[in-house]
Amino acid sequence: MKSILLLGAGRSANVLIKYLEEECGRAGMQYTVADQSMQLIDQKTARLQAGTGLQVEVSDKEKLNELVASHRLVISLLPPTMHVEVAKICLEHKKHLVTASYISEEMRKLDAEAKSKGLLFLNECGLDPGIDHMSAMEMIDEIRAEGGQIHTFKSWCGGLVAPESDDNPWGYKISWNPWNVVQAGKGISRFREGGKLRLLPYHQLFRHAEPVVIPDQNLQLEGYANRDSLVYDAVYGLENAKTIIRGTLRKQGYCKAWSVLVQLGLTDDTLPVEVNAGTCWPEWLKTFLPGKQDVKMAVRELLPEMDDATMSRLDWMGLFDEQNKIEKGGTLVAAAVLQQLMEKKWLLKQSDKDMVVMLHEFGYTTLKGENMQLTASLLVMGDDNEQTAMAKTVGLPLGIAAMNILNGNILENGVSLPAKQSIYEPLLYELTKHGIVFLKTPSTQ
Amino acid sequence: MKSILLLGAGRSANVLIKYLEEECGRAGMQYTVADQSMQLIDQKTARLQAGTGLQVEVSDKEKLNELVASHRLVISLLPPTMHVEVAKICLEHKKHLVTASYISEEMRKLDAEAKSKGLLFLNECGLDPGIDHMSAMEMIDEIRAEGGQIHTFKSWCGGLVAPESDDNPWGYKISWNPWNVVQAGKGISRFREGGKLRLLPYHQLFRHAEPVVIPDQNLQLEGYANRDSLVYDAVYGLENAKTIIRGTLRKQGYCKAWSVLVQLGLTDDTLPVEVNAGTCWPEWLKTFLPGKQDVKMAVRELLPEMDDATMSRLDWMGLFDEQNKIEKGGTLVAAAVLQQLMEKKWLLKQSDKDMVVMLHEFGYTTLKGENMQLTASLLVMGDDNEQTAMAKTVGLPLGIAAMNILNGNILENGVSLPAKQSIYEPLLYELTKHGIVFLKTPSTQ
Repeated sequence: MKSILLLGAGRSANVLIKYLEEECGRAGMQYTVADQSMQLIDQKTARLQAGTGLQVEVSDKEKLNELVASHRLVISLLPPTMHVEVAKICLEHKKHLVTASYISEEMRKLDAEAKSKGLLFLNECGLDPGIDHMSAMEMIDEIRAEGGQIHTFKSWCGGLVAPESDDNPWGYKISWNPWNVVQAGKGISRFREGGKLRLLPYHQLFRHAEPVVIPDQNLQLEGYANRDSLVYDAVYGLENAKTIIRGTLRKQGYCKAWSVLVQLGLTDDTLPVEVNAGTCWPEWLKTFLPGKQDVKMAVRELLPEMDDATMSRLDWMGLFDEQNKIEKGGTLVAAAVLQQLMEKKWLLKQSDKDMVVMLHEFGYTTLKGENMQLTASLLVMGDDNEQTAMAKTVGLPLGIAAMNILNGNILENGVSLPAKQSIYEPLLYELTKHGIVFLKTPSTQ
Repeated sequence: MKSILLLGAGRSANVLIKYLEEECGRAGMQYTVADQSMQLIDQKTARLQAGTGLQVEVSDKEKLNELVASHRLVISLLPPTMHVEVAKICLEHKKHLVTASYISEEMRKLDAEAKSKGLLFLNECGLDPGIDHMSAMEMIDEIRAEGGQIHTFKSWCGGLVAPESDDNPWGYKISWNPWNVVQAGKGISRFREGGKLRLLPYHQLFRHAEPVVIPDQNLQLEGYANRDSLVYDAVYGLENAKTIIRGTLRKQGYCKAWSVLVQLGLTDDTLPVEVNAGTCWPEWLKTFLPGKQDVKMAVRELLPEMDDATMSRLDWMGLFDEQNKIEKGGTLVAAAVLQQLMEKKWLLKQSDKDMVVMLHEFGYTTLKGENMQLTASLLVMGDDNEQTAMAKTVGLPLGIAAMNILNGNILENGVSLPAKQSIYEPLLYELTKHGIVFLKTPSTQ
């Protein structure tokens, strides 16, 4: 019986595989890395000693069952929609499961059966969701243990480019799924501010970013509310907090420029249309600007807050450059055309380093009635474009959770996330050994 | 065996019931009007002679089967999602069906079976879709019969308020389903202009309305592209036309003001939130304006094209009036809150008259190479807030189609729409007798 089955060897698996190789090797355990892509398996598992790489079609249910049956625990980095199917196979063979994805309704329904079989299906155990839950809940539990009443909670996270590799006016390169970058913020965002419900539709969201300061760091960042912040009311027990915002970080100026792309409709994913390869970008922009001749002028008139810095970001992106062509044509949604451009312009080059930034801001009242502020910040740098900060902060919590479940340090069961002390404590402790350490800054307001 | 079963006795049925009463009465035929609402049946069928009113739960499949079996033809004014179920019952009992709704994919799948049974399922047979198909295709067929090549087709339609009842700065009152008014234009709109594909996302759509002139009428209108105009390429055989736009008409200035509501997020229908009855509108607006104190100022800054006329329309709507309260609270999407306000402010009062406007604009080249322009316009006035222009133009085509199918004037079968001469010709001919007459204006360009 091998120890761990890792499903998925993509971008997020790089550091996780390195961790499993070291930890399993040390413990004399064997593990398996399975992926659909032979290329990924060749590239990432050829030199492993404790681990074995395996090309597997995820549609091959028989093979998947066989694999799950021959391991003690499964880590799934497959697309979120596939987790429930994997979870059901885990139920059948009585195996634990760890994922970095949000708990879906279907996953939640497996709770009773997982509990009755003594299995832990630990989800939301990557960066965001993941490290955010662990670190926020640790601080919330600390504040509460001293009788503090939390009235404000703001939690920010961003996968950015490290300052030393930051050579474009957006201050951004892509360190994770580029489709998610293009689709970020879709829907209507909900949060609470000063006791009042706030709603921001997608096309307004990026116009309302707020400046965010990371203590002791020379980083000019800004944040926008990320979808429904109020689901954290219940998860963190913050129903009575007057302000609760959970948001995404970008370098200052990014959001205003991105809001122009959103306003234009370039991120639409609802209607596939015929796109010709070789069409230049100004021509493609005209599709979204009826009756206008001068594309640059028309874009400048889109929003009242348009300024030269924003226009220069759009310029750098090549939106007005007739030499900048759409490379792949076909029947595409606008967002897929934009993604091509982003992947080219925001490429994380081999020597580039990415950066993960997380910040929690708490406001609370002590037992004595003092108004206190507490911030906790995390800064993680990537080594290069393989061992990225993103791969570290997504992969390490998964690997550490897996090892701690197998060695009996975590004894929970059911469908869960790392918000309980019994789960987050051993995980945060191990994460510090890998340089994932929060800087806490308390202050009287 | 009775002749016609009309399912649905709502707003759109008023004129249709009057028509059926006259026509069936004259022909010695009997018909039935069925609706879920006893109140509607009491109100609309008590004095009928040829017709009988019947309260029926549409969920009562047995009753519905029995009803369909005892009639020769069904007209469905039920919500579009229910048509397919009705159509299947029609297949079982071998009955014709007429609706005013777009043909859904599921409806299309019934084509072969309807054909094999010699049944006609005639959809898109109201105003828009309906009269637009008939009148446009008649003109297209005429132009083609003379060898003309159509390069431009613009088709506009609007349900508006008649000038004599127009007493608000939006020039609008609600003569049809108010939810559809609030949801108008959702998605991304697609059309072709000068040979070029155009895409307008929802939040841009109302910023790009174009002026529309109705020949010989003193009406200052504007139009916006309504969803996917290019589906009419195939329906009308206009794949080679350089310009094809199918749009919605409003009074000039409406669209710019409506675009502010869209930008704010007031039309969102994705996330239900808790809304307290009695909340005043400026307070509700603050939900959509984070960090802003002066609501009016913040709204003024939303769009570069904001002007006093637009602000005065918003003012008239009561957006900035603290005495203007949300009446019904609960767990509501923003669009439902806005609908309450619209129903109050844009109420079509008893003596008010509505107006339906339709305009087709064709550009074509004759066999001799002349460039010609041809417009056809329709103006229909309501009598009051019951016998509306909307009820006339939706109901009469349905009733006329039903009678013509039953008397053998229309002999088609399968799932169809009124774009074929054999269908539109008898319908347009009968419609002229009810004052639904297009004014055609040819001219050399």
